[in-house]
Amino acid sequence: MADNKHFPVEDITLAGEQNACQTVQDHHRASRQELPAVVDAVVESCRTVPHIAHVESALIPSKEEVTALVDEMTRIVFPGFFGKQELDWPSLPYRVGQGVTELFDRLSLQISRSIRHECRRTESLCTHCLDTGQRQALAFLRRLPEVRQLVSGDVVAAYRGDPAAKSYDEIVFCYPGLYAVAVYRLAHVLYELDVPVLPRMMTEHAHSLTGIDIHPGATIGREFFIDHGTGVVIGETCRIGDRVTLYQGVTLGALSFVRDESGGLVRGTKRHPTIEDDVVIYSGATLLGGDTVVGRGCVIGGNVWLTESVPPNTKVTHEAPRLVYRQAAPEDA
Amino acid sequence: MADNKHFPVEDITLAGEQNACQTVQDHHRASRQELPAVVDAVVESCRTVPHIAHVESALIPSKEEVTALVDEMTRIVFPGFFGKQELDWPSLPYRVGQGVTELFDRLSLQISRSIRHECRRTESLCTHCLDTGQRQALAFLRRLPEVRQLVSGDVVAAYRGDPAAKSYDEIVFCYPGLYAVAVYRLAHVLYELDVPVLPRMMTEHAHSLTGIDIHPGATIGREFFIDHGTGVVIGETCRIGDRVTLYQGVTLGALSFVRDESGGLVRGTKRHPTIEDDVVIYSGATLLGGDTVVGRGCVIGGNVWLTESVPPNTKVTHEAPRLVYRQAAPEDA
Amino acid sequence: MADNKHFPVEDITLAGEQNACQTVQDHHRASRQELPAVVDAVVESCRTVPHIAHVESALIPSKEEVTALVDEMTRIVFPGFFGKQELDWPSLPYRVGQGVTELFDRLSLQISRSIRHECRRTESLCTHCLDTGQRQALAFLRRLPEVRQLVSGDVVAAYRGDPAAKSYDEIVFCYPGLYAVAVYRLAHVLYELDVPVLPRMMTEHAHSLTGIDIHPGATIGREFFIDHGTGVVIGETCRIGDRVTLYQGVTLGALSFVRDESGGLVRGTKRHPTIEDDVVIYSGATLLGGDTVVGRGCVIGGNVWLTESVPPNTKVTHEAPRLVYRQAAPEDA
Repeated sequence: MADNKHFPVEDITLAGEQNACQTVQDHHRASRQELPAVVDAVVESCRTVPHIAHVESALIPSKEEVTALVDEMTRIVFPGFFGKQELDWPSLPYRVGQGVTELFDRLSLQISRSIRHECRRTESLCTHCLDTGQRQALAFLRRLPEVRQLVSGDVVAAYRGDPAAKSYDEIVFCYPGLYAVAVYRLAHVLYELDVPVLPRMMTEHAHSLTGIDIHPGATIGREFFIDHGTGVVIGETCRIGDRVTLYQGVTLGALSFVRDESGGLVRGTKRHPTIEDDVVIYSGATLLGGDTVVGRGCVIGGNVWLTESVPPNTKVTHEAPRLVYRQAAPEDA
Repeated sequence: MADNKHFPVEDITLAGEQNACQTVQDHHRASRQELPAVVDAVVESCRTVPHIAHVESALIPSKEEVTALVDEMTRIVFPGFFGKQELDWPSLPYRVGQGVTELFDRLSLQISRSIRHECRRTESLCTHCLDTGQRQALAFLRRLPEVRQLVSGDVVAAYRGDPAAKSYDEIVFCYPGLYAVAVYRLAHVLYELDVPVLPRMMTEHAHSLTGIDIHPGATIGREFFIDHGTGVVIGETCRIGDRVTLYQGVTLGALSFVRDESGGLVRGTKRHPTIEDDVVIYSGATLLGGDTVVGRGCVIGGNVWLTESVPPNTKVTHEAPRLVYRQAAPEDA
Repeated sequence: MADNKHFPVEDITLAGEQNACQTVQDHHRASRQELPAVVDAVVESCRTVPHIAHVESALIPSKEEVTALVDEMTRIVFPGFFGKQELDWPSLPYRVGQGVTELFDRLSLQISRSIRHECRRTESLCTHCLDTGQRQALAFLRRLPEVRQLVSGDVVAAYRGDPAAKSYDEIVFCYPGLYAVAVYRLAHVLYELDVPVLPRMMTEHAHSLTGIDIHPGATIGREFFIDHGTGVVIGETCRIGDRVTLYQGVTLGALSFVRDESGGLVRGTKRHPTIEDDVVIYSGATLLGGDTVVGRGCVIGGNVWLTESVPPNTKVTHEAPRLVYRQAAPEDA
């Protein structure tokens, strides 16, 4: 009976009261008789309200599947770090072999779903989505050693940049910035392979865990370090050079949007800044605009708001805002 | 045996060392003999330390139950988006029907628990909490089509506002701002029905996943869009009009708090701003105070700190803070 | 068969197409023949790319185990709040007793792993890691009543500081700031006991859920309150007094880093500010540097950027930045 299922045994107090109270039972029965009208109204709203019912569309990777994919990828990028068994050199090939094989099948399927979903949405036809999924998954796997090389450089950069880091291992185990960048690097490979939707779902998964929002379309060089990271936003068309460091709350965003004659946004133009090599950007700084270029070796101070280019080797800070000091009164903000 | 359970088989190295090392076994036995004293001390502290032991109080929805409720609600608001099966029109009524029925039972129970918890805490009496739970759950369900209408408008607003969005579907699948707003809209209905605690638990669940903190008591109009979103705070007594857009890090907060004669906070007054229709507020802006009204059509620039009202159709920016440019020196912040 | 496993039954459309399309099957077989080369390349990169393969190293607590530990600890700190059964005074000792016993075994093992991992990494020898793990776990448990006392004070501080709080219970159930501070207080005890890595993993778990990044090495006094909290960063060597309140986006960070002759960072110096008793720091303020001392009773305004000490009972604000008001034009930021 539905009631037994939904008023579980541990819920003794409520169940007790329920027995005592026949009227509640009656009301429950009466309430449930109202439900068909509610269902009809919701179904009707699926027909009349656009955009938020996904009916007769192809499946897309679920959040659970994206989480599983990302977990499997990071286990291959960082072997031995997140598992439940110690890893030694003789067993490594078996562990990697099993991981890569499973990832191939899983990723093929999810890429196929993403492509198929895209096809059906645009109402063109795609007979080869499974095939394409397999080819793209294979192309992705072939680039894993390159991704590992990049991520290894990111670990070195974190150690070099943070005096609180006690070891390389601590960075892999604990640093949300490293995690977000590693997931971005994996998603970026899929983005370059033109896989729809899935790359963005992967970086949004990392965003949810870390507060760091990196669009998979951004281009980021070697030895990149984000410290703390909550609130960082890196837009789709950013270009970031080598050995760049960002702190929490940095935005690399768009300045204003171009619209076409009918008022729609023009999509696909360069809207976000270019950051050259060896730049440090301190917490809370906001850099906007596709024409903004921060030259090699620059240091951008905390909270700076910047919408223009900066020549190389320049340090940019606010003119120290005059602080006002006065005797504190209680409850006075 | 407890040890076997807690030193699991895969933990071979430790288990091996354990066998080898009789003194460790002895110490373990000795340590466990200390535990009863620890338990007594903790139990004693439950009696003496107030507020953080919840003994002889009614159950409240657990985080797991709140997560399950929110998942069930979003599956009904966005049918076909997050499931594991494709949905077609003929099967839609069955899927919605099953979802609504389950949600009714689950939500009734959790509302009842929330009410009962509140009753017992305030030591008044409530004999009808199960009954009230059912009435409020039904009232909530009846408003689902209205919520779906609002959320559909939010999707359109996101597409209109973000050139990186490739399709409506991508917004539903990937945008944390849309998720946070949808959960707020659901929680707000329960808040209006005077359900205690549960609405706040729902929006805190979304806060945890998105970094966007919307109090369920806020009032928000149609076609609301939050881009990126990490760090956004929207206070309990905010009033927000139609077609408003916020970026990451925007605070709509309280300025200072009124206290009564005994020094306690006065609760329930309007403490947070009013934002009229068609306003855009860029990243990091902070707007404070219950008397602060931002007029229709205003644009509030990034990082602006505002504690006063703004007439309609005004653009508010900082006077560009003078930036200081100088040759960068290494390690110089 | 692998294919059956990875193209599950619910995925009818894809499975259907797969049967229809023999070439896809052929391609799948062909693709899988490419996998051994991919595996070899990844294994090779584990040998050649440093830092991110954890081979022949000791296990470290997994994220799942850290999550389980933190859950168990919080159930003991807040008995009856997060469980599925109502708690009464007669049953309390049994519940606490079971929780403490399980936590002792679990925590001993994880501390042992952390120590062993550290030992092997530095290539010194540690024959007593299991023993040390038990002693440290016991020392931790003995301090639980003290932690409960501190956390109880934090709840009072939150109620005193937030007019939106309806009850103490709501704060325990819903406030991310309280959660982050409670996890910090637990992790800090382990940090003081010189447990490696585990404390940082605990606070990073809380950071991931709340956006609040408190290093376990920070020192924080009684009745501490963080409201909203997303984006808060509290560095390793901070010292914070009693009755301090922080809002979202506050950074207590390092100013610049000292390097030794070889260019490496000097680790372990005091790099973060000291905040004395009864200080309030509003949202987005950034306080930097190990010599920065904010005196008792100060109020630091929102967005203030501070790198120098402030005498007691001072209110520090920006000189109100001149706002520029002009007629808004569409799409003009």
